[in-house]
Amino acid sequence: MGRIYERTSAFFGVKTDLETLTKDLLSGDRRALARAISVVENGGPQATQLVKRVYAQSGRAHLIGVTGSPGVGKSTLVDALITQMREANLKVGVLAIDPSSPFTGGAILGDRIRMQAHTLDKSVFIRSMANRGHSGGIAMGTYDAVRMLEASGYDVVIIETVGVGQSELAIAQAADTTILVLMPGSGDDVQAIKSGIMEIGDIFVVNKGDLPGANKTATDITASLELASFQTDWRPPVITCISETGENVDQIWEAAKNHREFLETSGQLKERRKLKVQAELSEIVAGMARDNLKAALANSGETKEVVGQVVEREVDPHTAAEQLAKTLFGGV
Amino acid sequence: MGRIYERTSAFFGVKTDLETLTKDLLSGDRRALARAISVVENGGPQATQLVKRVYAQSGRAHLIGVTGSPGVGKSTLVDALITQMREANLKVGVLAIDPSSPFTGGAILGDRIRMQAHTLDKSVFIRSMANRGHSGGIAMGTYDAVRMLEASGYDVVIIETVGVGQSELAIAQAADTTILVLMPGSGDDVQAIKSGIMEIGDIFVVNKGDLPGANKTATDITASLELASFQTDWRPPVITCISETGENVDQIWEAAKNHREFLETSGQLKERRKLKVQAELSEIVAGMARDNLKAALANSGETKEVVGQVVEREVDPHTAAEQLAKTLFGGV
Repeated sequence: MGRIYERTSAFFGVKTDLETLTKDLLSGDRRALARAISVVENGGPQATQLVKRVYAQSGRAHLIGVTGSPGVGKSTLVDALITQMREANLKVGVLAIDPSSPFTGGAILGDRIRMQAHTLDKSVFIRSMANRGHSGGIAMGTYDAVRMLEASGYDVVIIETVGVGQSELAIAQAADTTILVLMPGSGDDVQAIKSGIMEIGDIFVVNKGDLPGANKTATDITASLELASFQTDWRPPVITCISETGENVDQIWEAAKNHREFLETSGQLKERRKLKVQAELSEIVAGMARDNLKAALANSGETKEVVGQVVEREVDPHTAAEQLAKTLFGGV
Repeated sequence: MGRIYERTSAFFGVKTDLETLTKDLLSGDRRALARAISVVENGGPQATQLVKRVYAQSGRAHLIGVTGSPGVGKSTLVDALITQMREANLKVGVLAIDPSSPFTGGAILGDRIRMQAHTLDKSVFIRSMANRGHSGGIAMGTYDAVRMLEASGYDVVIIETVGVGQSELAIAQAADTTILVLMPGSGDDVQAIKSGIMEIGDIFVVNKGDLPGANKTATDITASLELASFQTDWRPPVITCISETGENVDQIWEAAKNHREFLETSGQLKERRKLKVQAELSEIVAGMARDNLKAALANSGETKEVVGQVVEREVDPHTAAEQLAKTLFGGV
C-alpha cells in the first residue's frame, strides 16, 4: 500500500512497475488508482499497456453522466447524489471534466471547491480531469479513467461535464444514464429541448427548486417531452429538487437505478456500449493516423515535399492529404 | 449578384453551382462569400471541392488572432481595431469562434451583439462560427473560412476566440499575429504568463486601461516577458488601451503591422505557415481514417465482429484498433 511508483519504476523498470500498479489497482489501493488515472490521462504506450491489463475487469459500474449549463448547480447535485449512493453502501467514483484554460494550463474549476463533504470517505474517489481540447484525448482519457475506477472496485462512476462545447456532450453520451440539470428560468435550455436537441437526457432535473419559476420550468420540460419522439420505451422523468438541502435527490437516484434496469432488461445497455466502442475505436484509429503522419513528416523526404507544395499553394491541403493517405495507408 | 445558390443548384446540378459560387466569390460578392463559408463550415465533398478551386487565391491576408479570458473585452477591441484598419482602407473579415453549446446547438454569443458599428460597412464582413467540439472540425472549418475571405479579397482576417479550451488556442495559433487580451487585475492570467504558458502571444494588450491596477498588470506582464526566453527575435510589446474609447488602439494596430513585417523579413511567416499546414494535414488524414472505419463498421462483417469482441471484453479497444488499422490501412 502507498508505494511510490515513480521510484519502483526507476529500480525495476517499466514492466515491473506496471505489474505492481495493476496488482495494487485491482486490490483497491487508492494511491494506485490515482496513479493509474494519471497514466491513462497522459496517454501513450504505458496507458495502452495498463488498459490492456485491466480491461477484462472493467465494464461493471453504472456510469452516470451529469451535464448542464454553467451555474445550474451540477457539483452540488453530484454531492447530494453521492450521499444517496453511500447510504446504499456503494463505492462512488467521480470524474469531473473541466474545460481546461490555456491561461491556467489545466483544470480551472479544480478539486478544491468540489464535494468537500466526501473528502474523508474512503469509498468516494473524486478526480478533476482536464478537457484537453483534443477530441481524441478527451474521450479516450475519460473512457480509460472510468476503466481504472471499475477495475478498482467502484460501483458507480459519475461523469460530470459542463454543458458548453459538444466535446463535453460526447462524454455525457459515454454514460449509461445521462442526467440533464437545468434551473428555474433557463428558458434557452428549455427552448433547446423543444427543438429536439436534448434527446440525450435520460433524466431531467430542475435544480434550485426553491427559486421562483421552478414549477413552470418543470411543466415546460414535461410538455416538450410529451411532444418528443423517443427511440426506446424509456420516458425521461422530470424531477424538481433542491441539491443544497438534498430535497428530492433520492428520487433522482431512484430514477437513475430504474433507468439502468431498463437498459439491462431492454437490451439497450449492450446497444449503447456497442456504439461507445465504435466511437472509441474511431478515435484510436484517427490518433494512429495522426501519429503515422507525424512520423512521416519527421522522416520522409517525400512527405516534407508535399508540405512544401501546400505552403507554396501549388497543391491544396485536401489533395495533398489524399496523396499522403495513399502513401501512409496504402490508399484510402 | 445576390443569386440564390440553393435554387441554381436544383436547376443546374452541384458542379454548375460550385462554378458559379466560385466565380462570384472571387469577384467579391458578399452573398457568395456568406454561402461559401457555410459550405466549408458544413464540410464534406462540396467543401473540399470549393477549397480546391480557390486555394491558389488564398494565403494573402494578414491573419490576426485575438484571444483572452471571457469578459476582458475582446469584441470591443476587435471593433476598435476594425476602425483602424478601415482608416487604412483595408477590407476586414472577422471570424468570431464561439464555444457552441449543446443547449443551443450553435453559436451562443452570436453576431447580434457584435461589432454593430460596422454592420453597414460593405468592406467589413463579420461571421460567428460555432466551435463544433470536434477538434478536426474546428480547425478545418476555420482554416477554410479564412481561405474564402482571402479569395474574396479581404486584406486582414481577425480570428476572435474565447480563451477557454485548448481548441480555441489551436485556432489562435493558426493566426500570423496573436493578440492576447487581459484586463487589470487578471492575476491568474499574469500567473500563467509567468509560468511560461503564454508564449503564444505576439502582442499583449491590457484592455480597460482606465480601471484601477492597469499599470500594475502591464508592469507585471512586462517583467514576466523580460524573464522569458523567446524562440525568435520578436519581443512582444505590452500595450494598455481602452477599447471603448479607442485610446491606444492605433498602437496595437501599429504593433500588429510591425509583427507581420518581422515575420516576413525574418522568414518566420513561411515557418509558421508550414507548421500550420502540417497540423491541418494531420487533421484531414485523421478524419479520413475515421471515415474509413465508419465505412468498415457499416459494411464489413469482420469489423463488426471485432466490435462485438470488445463489447464482450474479450479484446481491449487498443488491441482491437491495432487489428482494425492493419485491415484498414494495411498496417500501422
